[in-house]
Amino acid sequence: MLVDGVAAERISALDRGLAYGDGLFESIRLVGTAAPLWTRHMQRLLEGCSRLRIPSPDPALLWREALQVSRDMPQSVVRFTITRGAGERGYALPVSPRPTRVVAAFVPPPVTAAAYAQGVRLRVCNIRLAEQPLLAGIKHLNRLEQVLARAEWDDPAIVEGVLLDTCERVISATMANLFAVVDGELLTPALDRCGVAGVARAEVLAVCPQARTGELTLAMLRGASEVFLSSSVRGIVPVHSLGDCSYAPGATTRQLQQHWCNLGFSMEQGG
Amino acid sequence: MLVDGVAAERISALDRGLAYGDGLFESIRLVGTAAPLWTRHMQRLLEGCSRLRIPSPDPALLWREALQVSRDMPQSVVRFTITRGAGERGYALPVSPRPTRVVAAFVPPPVTAAAYAQGVRLRVCNIRLAEQPLLAGIKHLNRLEQVLARAEWDDPAIVEGVLLDTCERVISATMANLFAVVDGELLTPALDRCGVAGVARAEVLAVCPQARTGELTLAMLRGASEVFLSSSVRGIVPVHSLGDCSYAPGATTRQLQQHWCNLGFSMEQGG
Repeated sequence: MLVDGVAAERISALDRGLAYGDGLFESIRLVGTAAPLWTRHMQRLLEGCSRLRIPSPDPALLWREALQVSRDMPQSVVRFTITRGAGERGYALPVSPRPTRVVAAFVPPPVTAAAYAQGVRLRVCNIRLAEQPLLAGIKHLNRLEQVLARAEWDDPAIVEGVLLDTCERVISATMANLFAVVDGELLTPALDRCGVAGVARAEVLAVCPQARTGELTLAMLRGASEVFLSSSVRGIVPVHSLGDCSYAPGATTRQLQQHWCNLGFSMEQGG
Repeated sequence: MLVDGVAAERISALDRGLAYGDGLFESIRLVGTAAPLWTRHMQRLLEGCSRLRIPSPDPALLWREALQVSRDMPQSVVRFTITRGAGERGYALPVSPRPTRVVAAFVPPPVTAAAYAQGVRLRVCNIRLAEQPLLAGIKHLNRLEQVLARAEWDDPAIVEGVLLDTCERVISATMANLFAVVDGELLTPALDRCGVAGVARAEVLAVCPQARTGELTLAMLRGASEVFLSSSVRGIVPVHSLGDCSYAPGATTRQLQQHWCNLGFSMEQGG
């Protein structure tokens, strides 16, 4: 692990990332020394820095550090955490911010071949995401809603939870975005009020020009012919059930899994 | 500074407090070795731990550590940060959580005698607080809304910003609660949807049985006869203006400032 470019395991206890969650992160899947979605990760990170007014890190430096921490790992997830750094006490922005940069590599979370082939089981979470347009879309460090959502169940057969907003619109899963084929149309929720705009979601939208972002209700989701999750870490994961609704992975899901293979991700792919 | 009871300045970069803002804090004003609002701080902290399902720290241990870090300081603010600790990656709660405890003492922020005597100037913030009942009231580490609110202005003549929710209800200031005397009645916003339920606010409500919590609109605030801020760190601070509205510190404000003196806080008091 690197903290500000130096091998270290600890950060200042006065860092605003700890004090206020005042920062951003990215979790990037690497295959050896390749990161197929790198450019999209950097786009989102720099947009987040701009919106939070945190000085942007240099992507070339991040890339060198990503390679350094993941050296000798055939598969890895590199997490960047960028905070506003240590500062004076209080919420006011430091006059001369010195952001903190943490770069760490992890073994990717296991996803079974069965999950890619047949799909995973979802539940609907009880928590409703609060609507904050100023923070929507970016991957900031204020993630208590996701922690509370994930704490709602401990049945290992349930892989993910569907998150709704306070107006009962479907937004995403707790750690992935969500797509549904509704009446033949590929749809994913708009994320201008809450949620994280995943880079895998952006990739799907880029390669499926027929896909649309908009409002997705639970009834629409239940009536969908295909549902899948997108994640930069896990790739394209079909959904086989949501409560008592069942789905079969369809042509769109399979095409996108193939696209993920073509990008260079060597995940197990079903179908 | 103490980290888990040991003199240290750093915490694990894998701590969930940094990764997700997964924790709580308290900023407690000490006068020598006395903390007049200690019991209320502990009540809020333990309620926060319960709601976030973080194992509670032992208040007796916290007290010993507060005295240790503030030794030889005639006036101090002791900040406790309690996180869910380092854990496996992902939002799921660790099976065996080992919370992290950071205890640090700071010199209290300066508040001028003029501020206590004549009051301070406020503005209305543009940001609207999102409504998340599951997180409302507790002092958790997800504070990006407050950071963004405070970043809206840099005029040093403006001391605080008024925060509204998405329904245009007044909620609080960025780092204090807010009270207004409206039609002769002492009123402070209900905090069941957003905001932090301050311990100074709880003290005011306890010593003013005539005070009421409820809905406060900007129009009601502008028409108030008295407005003041309550903060466990700064005490009772009158508001002398909000935009082009002016207020004079009134009898309720002065009584509460006197009560703060009686509690043992040696802040400068106006009037």
